[in-house]
Formats: sequence, C-alpha cells, structure tokens
Amino acid sequence: MPSTPHIEQHFTSGKSVRDIVIGMSDGLTVPFALAAGLSGAIDSTSIVVTAGLAEIAAGSIAMGLGGYLAARSDAEHYASERLREQREVRDLPGAEAKEVADLLGSYGVGPEAAAPLIDALKARPEAWVDFMMRFELGLDQPEPKRAVISAATIAGAYVVGGLIPLAPYFFFTVTDRALVLSSLLTLLALCVFGYVKGRYTGAPPTRSAAQTVLVGGLAAAAAFVIARAIGG
Amino acid sequence: MPSTPHIEQHFTSGKSVRDIVIGMSDGLTVPFALAAGLSGAIDSTSIVVTAGLAEIAAGSIAMGLGGYLAARSDAEHYASERLREQREVRDLPGAEAKEVADLLGSYGVGPEAAAPLIDALKARPEAWVDFMMRFELGLDQPEPKRAVISAATIAGAYVVGGLIPLAPYFFFTVTDRALVLSSLLTLLALCVFGYVKGRYTGAPPTRSAAQTVLVGGLAAAAAFVIARAIGG
Repeated sequence: MPSTPHIEQHFTSGKSVRDIVIGMSDGLTVPFALAAGLSGAIDSTSIVVTAGLAEIAAGSIAMGLGGYLAARSDAEHYASERLREQREVRDLPGAEAKEVADLLGSYGVGPEAAAPLIDALKARPEAWVDFMMRFELGLDQPEPKRAVISAATIAGAYVVGGLIPLAPYFFFTVTDRALVLSSLLTLLALCVFGYVKGRYTGAPPTRSAAQTVLVGGLAAAAAFVIARAIGG
Repeated sequence: MPSTPHIEQHFTSGKSVRDIVIGMSDGLTVPFALAAGLSGAIDSTSIVVTAGLAEIAAGSIAMGLGGYLAARSDAEHYASERLREQREVRDLPGAEAKEVADLLGSYGVGPEAAAPLIDALKARPEAWVDFMMRFELGLDQPEPKRAVISAATIAGAYVVGGLIPLAPYFFFTVTDRALVLSSLLTLLALCVFGYVKGRYTGAPPTRSAAQTVLVGGLAAAAAFVIARAIGG
C-alpha cells in the first residue's frame, strides 16, 4: 500500500508500545491484586506463590495468544475487504466512482472538483483499490509477522510485569511482610511504568503515572476486600 | 466528522463486540486456568474459590479501567492531532496543500488531477481538517461516552466469563470433582463463545470455536503444570 515513510513508522512503533502497555498493565496489576487478595485470607506465602505463578502462566498465554489471534483476524479482515474492493473496482466501476464522489462530497468537494481525481484512479485500478481501503474503510495493511511479534511482546511484558509483585513472596514465609514489600515494589513499578508509558504515548507523564497507580491500587483493593470477606 | 451512516454503524457495533470479546476471552480463560492450576496443588475448594473471586475482581477492574483509559487516550490523541491539523491548515496552507498532493500522488493521482480537489478543500478549512484526519492520519473521531461504555462492557464480560469456570468450586468441597465439571463447563462455554464470536466478526465459526478452545486449554494446561510442579 502506498504510504509515506513517516506514517508507517508512527504506526509500527505505536503498535509495539501498545502491546507492551497491554501486557505490562495487566501483568503488574492482576498478579499483584491476586497476591494481595490471597494475603488477606491466607497466612502462608507458598500458596500465594503457587497461585501467582499459575496466574502469570495463564494470563500471559491467554493474553499472548489472544493478541496473536486478534492480529491474525485483523490481517484476514483486511485481505477479505481488499478482495471485495478489487471485485467492485473491476465489476462495478461506475458504482465505485459514485462512492468516491459521495465520500469527497461529504468533505465539501463538489462533483466537478472530484472528476479529475476519479479519472486518475480509473486509470490505475490497483491504486484505486488502495485508495478505497484507506479512505472508504479506514484500514491499513497489517504487517506480515505482526501477529507473532504482537503475541510474544504481550506475553513477555505480562511475565516481566507479573514477577515484580510476586517476587517478595518468594523470600518471606508469612504473607503480611511480603504484602507490604510487594505493595511498595508494585507502586514504584506502576509509577515508573505509567510515567514511561506517558512519555511514549504523548500523555502528560505525571498524570499517566497517577492513573496507572490508581488502576493497580483499585484492582488490588477490590481483590483484597473480596478475598478477606470470603477467606478470612 | 462527515461520514456515511453505513460506516458509523459498522464502527460502533464492531467496537462493542470487540470489548465483549476482550473481556470474555480472558474472563473465561484466566480464572479457569488459575482454578485448574490451584486444583493441581491444593485439595480444598475454598482456597480456589477465594483465589478465583479475587482474580475476577482484580482482572475485571484492571481490564475495565484499562479499557477506559485506552479509550480516553484515543480521544485525547484525536483531539490533539486535530488541533495540530487545524493550526497547519490555518498557518501553513501551502505546505498542507503539498501534503495532499503528495498523498494523492502515491495513489497515482497527478498534480493536475489533484488541483481542483485541493482548491475545493481550501474553500472549506474545517472540512479540510476532517479530510486530513481521515486520509493522512487514518483517525476516526471517537464517540463521546465510548470510554465509559467500553470499560463497563469489558469488566461485565470478564465477570460473566469468570464465574462460569468458578461455579463448580462453590458446590464441591474437593477440587478433583470440581475441576472435572469446571473443565467440561468451560470447554462448552469456550466453544459457544468462539462460535458466536466467529459469527459476529466474520471468521469461520467452527475454526473460531476451535481456536478459542485451544487458547483456553493451553493456558489452563500451562497453569496446571506450573502449579503442580511448585505446589504438589
């Protein structure tokens, strides 16, 4: 698909950052909250470690494979829509030309101003198909291998994120102490992660850090309250 | 932003389905895998129930708030990019006109064919900004309230999905029996969910069902093996 290098680069790095953000937000938050919740109900850290590692395995695989399948289905969606546009450009060029005229009309471009552009597209059917993909459907061609990279990035970020809150439970036998250290460590990690995320996504870093800490804190508090209410 | 009703409708229902898919895939998979993993290491269902409910609380809040913040940041990204395009159209119309010509050039539309369109856009600066948002940046205007609806949909789908695999652990005291029933129930739910998801997203329903079962099965198997290796 024709496109300026600038746009492609923006697109690529945006997707990787997005995958890391997806994996690490949940990886930091859910295992932390689960461990905190169990600490509210159970004294022994060994069960917390077992549950935490099981959660990290399940969560990283579920999110990673989920990301893989989502990227694959984006690619399939693009391919099937492209085939349809190719058929339409080939078999119904008149109707397709009217679609372009209507679209441009919605931006205040009259039929006379649109006519030369439509004639130019008619001369190059493949470019016309690309034009429709971008302009009518708003779809970008997915990169090949995107699905695999996406899956590995999400899963890896989840594991890295999840081991941070769980680490203290490896070194203490009683949950109380581990919970305090885990909370401090996770708060710090959420703060740093939120700040860096803000830098990359263009949001104000301080606000991004505060929001990330809030999400992790709320999730952990809810898990803690529920686990203590049932188990304690 | 000008757009045909057809496109808007496609966009909206697609986003809601996507939110349900995001929430329910993880909701069915992770609590199931966690419960299965703990069943490999622990005999009493009460700890599994505590851990499972803590996980559902943590997971639904983390994913729901994550979805809320993601939708909010999409809206902010759109607003800031739109301000930039407005400035460029107002202050640097010459450079902006060249951008349009270059973009159209990449689709085989020459400068002469592009000129009438550019003149028409120049006559309506706001429409020109909308045109750049869609055509240069590929961004759609987010719906207001999208963030809140998205958060509630993801979190609700996670809770509904998570209670299915956990339900049997409420009714049995020994994990072995609960695990068998939970596996059957979850396999069935993953099958139905994958099938319906395929119908909505346009993927072949049978293949979608098989993939969904595979993801859930792999995540649960990994969690089970890890939990048994540590805890058993």
